[in-house]
Amino acid sequence: MALSPFAPASFPDLPVIDGVRFASAAAGVRYKGRTDVMLAELVAGTSVAGVFTRSSTRSAPVLDCQAKLGSDPSTPAAILVNSGNSNAFTGSAGEKSVAAICDAVAAATGVAADRIFTASTGVIGERLPHDRITTVIEGLKGDLAPEGIEGAARAIMTTDTFAKGASASIEIEGETVKIAGIAKGSGMIAPDMATMLVYLFTDAKIEQPALQALLGALTDQTFNCITVDSDTSTSDSLMIAATGTSGVDVTESAGFTQALYGVMLDLAHQVVKDGEGATKFVEVRVTGAATDLEARKVGLSIANSPLVKTAIAGEDPNWGRIVMAVGKSGCQADRDKLTIRFGDILVAEHGWVSPTYTEDTGAAYMRNETIEISVDLGIAGGLGTVWTCDLTHGYITINADYRS
Amino acid sequence: MALSPFAPASFPDLPVIDGVRFASAAAGVRYKGRTDVMLAELVAGTSVAGVFTRSSTRSAPVLDCQAKLGSDPSTPAAILVNSGNSNAFTGSAGEKSVAAICDAVAAATGVAADRIFTASTGVIGERLPHDRITTVIEGLKGDLAPEGIEGAARAIMTTDTFAKGASASIEIEGETVKIAGIAKGSGMIAPDMATMLVYLFTDAKIEQPALQALLGALTDQTFNCITVDSDTSTSDSLMIAATGTSGVDVTESAGFTQALYGVMLDLAHQVVKDGEGATKFVEVRVTGAATDLEARKVGLSIANSPLVKTAIAGEDPNWGRIVMAVGKSGCQADRDKLTIRFGDILVAEHGWVSPTYTEDTGAAYMRNETIEISVDLGIAGGLGTVWTCDLTHGYITINADYRS
Repeated sequence: MALSPFAPASFPDLPVIDGVRFASAAAGVRYKGRTDVMLAELVAGTSVAGVFTRSSTRSAPVLDCQAKLGSDPSTPAAILVNSGNSNAFTGSAGEKSVAAICDAVAAATGVAADRIFTASTGVIGERLPHDRITTVIEGLKGDLAPEGIEGAARAIMTTDTFAKGASASIEIEGETVKIAGIAKGSGMIAPDMATMLVYLFTDAKIEQPALQALLGALTDQTFNCITVDSDTSTSDSLMIAATGTSGVDVTESAGFTQALYGVMLDLAHQVVKDGEGATKFVEVRVTGAATDLEARKVGLSIANSPLVKTAIAGEDPNWGRIVMAVGKSGCQADRDKLTIRFGDILVAEHGWVSPTYTEDTGAAYMRNETIEISVDLGIAGGLGTVWTCDLTHGYITINADYRS
Repeated sequence: MALSPFAPASFPDLPVIDGVRFASAAAGVRYKGRTDVMLAELVAGTSVAGVFTRSSTRSAPVLDCQAKLGSDPSTPAAILVNSGNSNAFTGSAGEKSVAAICDAVAAATGVAADRIFTASTGVIGERLPHDRITTVIEGLKGDLAPEGIEGAARAIMTTDTFAKGASASIEIEGETVKIAGIAKGSGMIAPDMATMLVYLFTDAKIEQPALQALLGALTDQTFNCITVDSDTSTSDSLMIAATGTSGVDVTESAGFTQALYGVMLDLAHQVVKDGEGATKFVEVRVTGAATDLEARKVGLSIANSPLVKTAIAGEDPNWGRIVMAVGKSGCQADRDKLTIRFGDILVAEHGWVSPTYTEDTGAAYMRNETIEISVDLGIAGGLGTVWTCDLTHGYITINADYRS
C-alpha cells in the first residue's frame, strides 16, 4: 500500500506518562510478520473515560467497555487491543472471546476483570481466534515498559500507512502535566461519537465523571468533525486514562482542556491525512449558517460528496459541485447569499461566480496538498469546521480488494 | 467513455404519442459533434405535471417550471431542454437566459410563454450561452415530427453512455393508451423528489391535478428509490405530458397507474445501470423494519456506502460491510435479529454468519452482473427496495476529469 504523502518522517517523540506501561506482540490474529496486539497497564487510581460508536451493530468489545466505565478506579486497570479482526457481528461467540481475553489479562496481571478494557479492529463478521491472543498475554506482561507507546501505536494499525501519535506537556501551578495519545484509522471513518481507535494517556489528576464529560465535549470538536468516507465503524472507541501520578488536579484547568484538545485535533487530522488513498487534506469551514449544527451538516455534505472529493482528487476547481452539496444538505441556504472561497481566493458570491475569479487561479490553488474551502451561507451566525480528504483511485483499489 | 455493460444493443422502439412532436439539433452549447437541444411540442389540452429537485440551490429553469405548472391547459405547450450547461448558480443572468429561450420558442411556435417548460443539464456555475440555443429554435420548429423521440433522448445526454427510453401500451375500455418516456442521468444521482431529467408522454386523458398527484406518488416508488453517488443535482426535473388525444380518461384507472409505474421503474433502472463507472446493478431489499421509511433509510445507507459499493466492485462478498451500513443508518436494528441474503443464499442470521454459508458460495454469487441483497431487520413490518450500482475506478476517472 502506498505511503500517505502526509506520513511523517518518523513517529513523534512522545513523553513517558508516569503510571502507564506498554507492550506489544505478534499474535498472528490475521496479519503475518507484524505486531497485532498491544497491552497497556494503568496504575491504581487511574480514571478511565471513553466514547464509543453509536452503531446499532457495535462490537462485543465496545459493549463490554461501555459496561465497565463506571468500575471502581482505586485498583489498577488495563487496555488490550488487537488488530486484524473486529469481533463484530460474531454473536455470542464474540462475548465469549472478550471474556476469555479479559480472564487471561486478569490472570497474568492481577488486574480485576471489570477494569480491563478491550478493543478489536479489522474484518467484521469473522470469529475472533482469541486463543492466539491469550497465548501471548503472559509474554506481554513480561515486556511491559513505560517507553512502549510507539510499539502500541504500530500494533493497532490496520489499513493505516503510518503510526499516529501526538502529545503535549503543560505547566499547571508550577508542575508539568503530560498527555500522550495514539490513534488508528484510515477507512470507515465518519463522525458518530468517537471514530476509529484512539487511546490517550495523561498523568493529570481528575475524577472519572469530570474526565468523561471533558472527553465527550472535546470529541465533538475533533473526531466528530472528520470524515473519510461517511462510513461508521462498528468498533469505534476513544478512551482516555488519567493516572493522577503528577498530583496536579486539572478538573478546572482551561490549560489542560486546551492541551488535550490540541492532542485530539492533531490525532484526528492524522487519521484524515492517512485516509485510504488520500492525496489531499481538505478543511471545510462553514460560517453564516442558521445554527452551528446546520453549519456542520453543510460542511459534512460538502466533505462527504463523492463529486466534490473526486474533483479535488483531479485538482479541478469545480466549485459548482460545492454549490450542489450545499443545496442537497437540507439546511437553510439562499443561492444569492452564498459566498465560496478557495483559501483566500473569492470564487463565488451573490448567487454567481465572482467577477475577480479566474479558472487559472482556482486551478493553481487546487495543486496544493492542503485545500481550504470556506462557505458563508449569509443566513445567521452558525459556524463549524470539518476535515476530510479526497476520493481517489487509491480508495477503490484498497477497498475493492481489502480481504484478499 | 466506456459503454455501460448494461447498455442495450439499440434504442427501444417507442410508440408514437398522438399530439406530441419532437426535434433535436446541435447548438454547440458545450459539446461538439453531437446534438444538445431538444424541443417537444404538445397539442392544446395537454395536462403537464412535474416534480423537481428540492435542492436549495436549484437552477433557474427549475424555478421557472415550478411557477408554470398551474398554467391554463387549453392552449398548446412546449418543452425545451439543453445539455452541456445546467444554468444553475448563474444569478440573475440565469433567469434572463430562461426568459430569452422561452421568448424564442414562443415566437417560433406560437406557444404562450407560460406554457413553455425548459431544463438545462450539465456544468454548474457557468453562464448559459443562450443565444446558441435561440439561434436553432426556428430550425427545430421546422423539424418537428411525431417520430423524433429517440433524437430527443440523445440530445439530453451528458455523461450517459446510452440513450434511455421505455414505453407501455395498455387497453382501457377497449381503447389503447400509450406511454413513452425518455431519461438522462448517470452521476449526481440521489433520490430527493425527482432525479435527473425525465420526460414522459401519454395520449391518456387526465386533469392536471390528478396527473400531478399520480406522478408524485409514483416518483416516490421509482426515481426516489435509486442512488448512484448520493449527490443531488441542482437541475433534477421529471415531467409528464398527457395529451388526451386517445380520448380515454385514466383518472381512476389502476391499469394506467401500473403501466406508468412500469415505464418509470424501467427508466429509473436504466439510469442506475448507466451510473458513472457502473459494472454491477444492485437491488437492496429491506424488510422487517420499524416502518417503510426506516426500511428505505437502511436501504439507502447500504446503497450509498462507499465500502459496500467498492466491495461489490471487487466481487468481494464482504457482508460485514452490510452489517456496518445497517448499524450506521440510525434506524432501529438489533444485531441478533438481523438476516442477510445474497440472492437466495442465506449469509447471516441471529447476529452471526449462517452455518450453511461459505465464502466460496458468496464469492461465486458476487460474479453476477445483477446483485440482490436482502436484509431483514426482524423488528416489524416496514419494507422498501432501493437500487444502486457499484463504485469503481471508472467513477473516479469520470469525475476527477469531468470538465477537462
